[in-house]
Amino acid sequence: MILEIAAIDILPGTHEQFEAAVRTAVETVLSPAPGFVSFELRHGVERPDSYVLLIGWRSLEDHTVGFRESESFVKWRELIGPFFAGAPQVDHWSEVFEAAR
Amino acid sequence: MILEIAAIDILPGTHEQFEAAVRTAVETVLSPAPGFVSFELRHGVERPDSYVLLIGWRSLEDHTVGFRESESFVKWRELIGPFFAGAPQVDHWSEVFEAAR
Repeated sequence: MILEIAAIDILPGTHEQFEAAVRTAVETVLSPAPGFVSFELRHGVERPDSYVLLIGWRSLEDHTVGFRESESFVKWRELIGPFFAGAPQVDHWSEVFEAAR
Repeated sequence: MILEIAAIDILPGTHEQFEAAVRTAVETVLSPAPGFVSFELRHGVERPDSYVLLIGWRSLEDHTVGFRESESFVKWRELIGPFFAGAPQVDHWSEVFEAAR
């Protein structure tokens, strides 16, 4: 599983609207996308106007080709883009190993 | 659960040593730490000399006080620090919501 980490700074004071928009976008656009595995929205402790989206994909191409080149990506950005304070920082990370208590 | 995301650039050509050192450090130092929940090491697709460590903690203070002010943190850095190409970027992220297919 490939993990996409997208770090997003939002416009101050739009937290509730942004979180609601992400929820809608995940339910309607992201969840049905081929190769979508998992989603997590997290809020910055040290940076209160920042969020990270942790998105699991079956493969890199499921995101970079399948999703990004689809009409779904246009809808995704229409829903959550209005709250961005700048361009998101998006990177992909491959598994090495994991551990749990 | 609080997620610590630590982004680390390593010295070129030390990938195998770094990954082995992280494995040892997780097994011997991190896993027994009070409040430790989960650990994931991931490797940069776009940035091959970069890794992220995703570390779940029961609370923020379990990391920032309990772990960082303990002797364990000294051992942790002794094990993995020699491979760092610079200071790690460490941030904490609180839960908003998650979803899965």
